[in-house]
Amino acid sequence: MKNLLLLTHNSELNLAAYRQLGINIFTEESITPQDYASIEIMLGWKPDISQKVLTVSNGSLKWLQTISAGVDYLPLKTLKEKQVIVSNVSGVHAAPISQTVLLYALYFMRDLPQVLESSAQHHWEPQADFGDAFVLNETTWTIFGTGHIGSELARLLQAFHAKTIGVNRTGHKAAHFDDTFAQDDWRHAVTKSDVLVNIMPLTPQTTHFFDKTFFDALHNTYLFINVGRGKSVDTKALIEALNQQKLQHAALDVFEEEPLPSDNALWQMKNVLITPHYSAQTKHQGQAWDKIFLPNLKQFMRDGTVPINQINMQNGY
Amino acid sequence: MKNLLLLTHNSELNLAAYRQLGINIFTEESITPQDYASIEIMLGWKPDISQKVLTVSNGSLKWLQTISAGVDYLPLKTLKEKQVIVSNVSGVHAAPISQTVLLYALYFMRDLPQVLESSAQHHWEPQADFGDAFVLNETTWTIFGTGHIGSELARLLQAFHAKTIGVNRTGHKAAHFDDTFAQDDWRHAVTKSDVLVNIMPLTPQTTHFFDKTFFDALHNTYLFINVGRGKSVDTKALIEALNQQKLQHAALDVFEEEPLPSDNALWQMKNVLITPHYSAQTKHQGQAWDKIFLPNLKQFMRDGTVPINQINMQNGY
Repeated sequence: MKNLLLLTHNSELNLAAYRQLGINIFTEESITPQDYASIEIMLGWKPDISQKVLTVSNGSLKWLQTISAGVDYLPLKTLKEKQVIVSNVSGVHAAPISQTVLLYALYFMRDLPQVLESSAQHHWEPQADFGDAFVLNETTWTIFGTGHIGSELARLLQAFHAKTIGVNRTGHKAAHFDDTFAQDDWRHAVTKSDVLVNIMPLTPQTTHFFDKTFFDALHNTYLFINVGRGKSVDTKALIEALNQQKLQHAALDVFEEEPLPSDNALWQMKNVLITPHYSAQTKHQGQAWDKIFLPNLKQFMRDGTVPINQINMQNGY
Repeated sequence: MKNLLLLTHNSELNLAAYRQLGINIFTEESITPQDYASIEIMLGWKPDISQKVLTVSNGSLKWLQTISAGVDYLPLKTLKEKQVIVSNVSGVHAAPISQTVLLYALYFMRDLPQVLESSAQHHWEPQADFGDAFVLNETTWTIFGTGHIGSELARLLQAFHAKTIGVNRTGHKAAHFDDTFAQDDWRHAVTKSDVLVNIMPLTPQTTHFFDKTFFDALHNTYLFINVGRGKSVDTKALIEALNQQKLQHAALDVFEEEPLPSDNALWQMKNVLITPHYSAQTKHQGQAWDKIFLPNLKQFMRDGTVPINQINMQNGY
């Protein structure tokens, strides 16, 4: 028997299957301080309780399975010191995030803000007023991050006959990208693009990657999308770029400060679409997690390792 | 030399290329009543002037190239009597219409109405409130009309791993549809579908096809989309279905009465997205039309026939 601390709201998880593997399940409600040291597996992360389980004396935490793709919010240093295996659910979010990104793009390309404004006044504006509406065909996209999510987005964009450029650490080739560039070469990757998308994990290298220097290099770029991490963007520089029409539109799911304060200047900008860090949300998420967690759990029970999505604690992703 | 009457706002059309083929171009502004009988080709249709050119005594109109996919608005009987060749630009609209349809679906599936309502109040709603958001994967779509547009939409949906069911006159197989049914078998085609899309041409058979009997057969269907013709839908029955939750949402680009009057009940309904018959609009339309009109023109100048998209005047499409 191994003790698992379950820290996710998802009720669809097949707890019976875990128990059959010899798992004893604790929840936030059922666990007592005496149990902390006995927890070997943690599914999900909640700062208060998770920190206690991680740092309790004689603790036995061996594996943390997150329910996120990014792991930047974890105490990576402590986890590394204590040799805890960390695995994420990268890949699970590829479909919802990439489809949310396509929604953002079509929202602006099909002039939906203007359509909705007319609708609010019960006014059926003549179609001729939408002569600038366009579609994904023949648009060029630069996607920062060519992992599971970036690759799925690129695959869909190619189905729409869009051109896909990927940016990753070394510029290595990646599936469904017509071309790839190294992060240091970002200038070459953005000059001809209509849409720029950030899906990079947050690391010291990607913090404020999208800064004044970056935005100054743009020339009336159609759309910037952030579904990665808020701290990858210097919000002040982004707002300036929008005001100076270096950038026409932005669609932002993540922010330097979350929740986004109600007095943030972004709320006032008509050319910005703001969503609540929800691009990965889907009601089918439970089953999707299980596709990663369950095989990981099976192998962990056999030999103490996990086959899917183990984090390289050196890179932080 | 043959005389062409040009009735489209598009300035990008390559008029020089037409002239090189031996075409003399008239526009609405330059034509005089004395010229009516000399027009052999008409590009686009404007009721007043077009009717005059069609019915003038000793008229010589031989070919009408529309800039629409549907031809229901034309005086088909008179055109047939006068043996005028009619060709449409079916296919040109496949990309913008199918992408607009995907926007409609993702707009509801990603809870964008709720997101935008919070945004209007500068309120960043917690992501947990969007637990019902979902994506296209594993949704089932029934598309009424399996021509150019329906097939392009089905192709994209298959890229999203959605299931595609097509409905056409005879139930014949069609590209990118997992299954097809005949119009008379529509009941079998809709029972398990999340999204129903009308893209059928308007004919006597499709007028009020979506009537009370149709909507009564639905059970809490997620979304009905109309990008075909408004008159294919009995609006009263549609509103009733929405009120009785036989249907959860509707996205409508076309209406029985256009422009949609400001006192129409649909404007009040939060679960309805209304757009101004603009799903085919794109700023690249000029070049797209030319891909059909120019080859048609070349062959017409040689032998008086057109190779692309000639309408069967018996079927009306």
